Amino acid sequence: MNQFVVSDPQDPRIAAFRDIRERDLTGREGLFIAEGEVVVRVLASDASQCRPRALLLAEKRVAALADVIAALPDDAPVYVAAQDVLDQIAGFHLHRGILALGEKPPVLSLDAMLGEVRAQDVFVVASGIGNHDNMGGLFRNAAAFGARAVLLDGGCCDPFYRKSIRVSVGAVLRTPFVVMDRAQTITEALQAAGVDVLALTPSATQTLADYRRKGPAAVVLGSEGPGLPRSVIESCTAVGIPMAGGFDSLNVAATSAVALHHLQWARG
Amino acid sequence: MNQFVVSDPQDPRIAAFRDIRERDLTGREGLFIAEGEVVVRVLASDASQCRPRALLLAEKRVAALADVIAALPDDAPVYVAAQDVLDQIAGFHLHRGILALGEKPPVLSLDAMLGEVRAQDVFVVASGIGNHDNMGGLFRNAAAFGARAVLLDGGCCDPFYRKSIRVSVGAVLRTPFVVMDRAQTITEALQAAGVDVLALTPSATQTLADYRRKGPAAVVLGSEGPGLPRSVIESCTAVGIPMAGGFDSLNVAATSAVALHHLQWARG
Repeated sequence: MNQFVVSDPQDPRIAAFRDIRERDLTGREGLFIAEGEVVVRVLASDASQCRPRALLLAEKRVAALADVIAALPDDAPVYVAAQDVLDQIAGFHLHRGILALGEKPPVLSLDAMLGEVRAQDVFVVASGIGNHDNMGGLFRNAAAFGARAVLLDGGCCDPFYRKSIRVSVGAVLRTPFVVMDRAQTITEALQAAGVDVLALTPSATQTLADYRRKGPAAVVLGSEGPGLPRSVIESCTAVGIPMAGGFDSLNVAATSAVALHHLQWARG
Repeated sequence: MNQFVVSDPQDPRIAAFRDIRERDLTGREGLFIAEGEVVVRVLASDASQCRPRALLLAEKRVAALADVIAALPDDAPVYVAAQDVLDQIAGFHLHRGILALGEKPPVLSLDAMLGEVRAQDVFVVASGIGNHDNMGGLFRNAAAFGARAVLLDGGCCDPFYRKSIRVSVGAVLRTPFVVMDRAQTITEALQAAGVDVLALTPSATQTLADYRRKGPAAVVLGSEGPGLPRSVIESCTAVGIPMAGGFDSLNVAATSAVALHHLQWARG
């Protein structure tokens, strides 16, 4: 265990934690910042697909994380700072007082992931989801319902954005995912692997509630505004969730929960 | 139509719109602030259960709302300000540029609401939901799935908080609701009216997916931490949503979507 006290906000050892609000928007070359006890516990757990590189903690949070600190690899230092120093480093008041620097997982290939599709597998495909809260909610629901993986197209935001990780309660750090440029590349590969791919769209005549899967299935979710590309809808099994009068749509994270619950648990 | 230009941030006519971020937390004696075009359109629509009292718009937003402005009642003035004046009034940069002051609906009694329960009715009961995003999501889902009403206990936050209204995409302004002190008062009244009341809890042996309603139904949702009071669980039909290993729970708004979709659309 390597634990160090930081008293100077300009200390070069904690440069990766500086001004995190602004830098969240710029990318970090394979690294990310996670915050809060729940998420940092996932990052340091056996279930994590990401490596912890360093922690930065407010003094008063050290005791609560003693077991996490003790189990960290030797090359992951723990920096401890007074709350006011921590706030100066982060660039805003960080009331949670717990930050971690992590390393994104190795990139998975779509072929490798689809090499061994099993009958019980369920996948989530996201197209053009640009909102970090929705992305986090989508990963949280994927993990809660045991989805095999989340497959993102190039129009999606980075799930390793700090707020996405937080909203996902750490699911981003433990759920296998793939990023491909086009949604249709993903849906075609899934179909070639024997997966029935559902496109959720208000224009469908079949309802999700009446659909029963017979093998592996995937659900494609688009952004709330433009929805899914027509080519994707036409090449997949279109299903709809009927809405009450005057209401146009569900939030995309809520939609993922509805679809995953149905795919995993509907019988008969 | 009464339209006025405001050039002084201290203009007493727009006092209700001043420093809205802080004042959101203090209550407004039967009034509320709504923001953004989608929500303000709901407020001014026939579906609204709330009366618009005034609008405050950035100059550049007036054209987009011309039809709303023309249809406003005579006693609801429209104030128009330059963006920088609007920002000074609100106390932060209001990029949406659209605010409304509204009047909360008359208080409904539980007895009146449950006087004519129909077989197809579905209700949402919320206990101890203190997070404004979750409250907004819950109302959005209630509206999307056509729930008859949302019934809140005294541990819930105010759904007329600005952010709740926004997250609900206006559903708070058009969905009937009742507030009672205790959740059990609500569940007992529902049961007395012939409604099967489901308590969602991880401790249930029956799953939501296997449940089929035979008449009116309600779902009780608790906060993510403490969950529902034991007395509520024991007096209701307990059902669970199985979670994948290592994941403890869904977000409460996502849970409401899953439950409402199942109650409204599951057959057979």
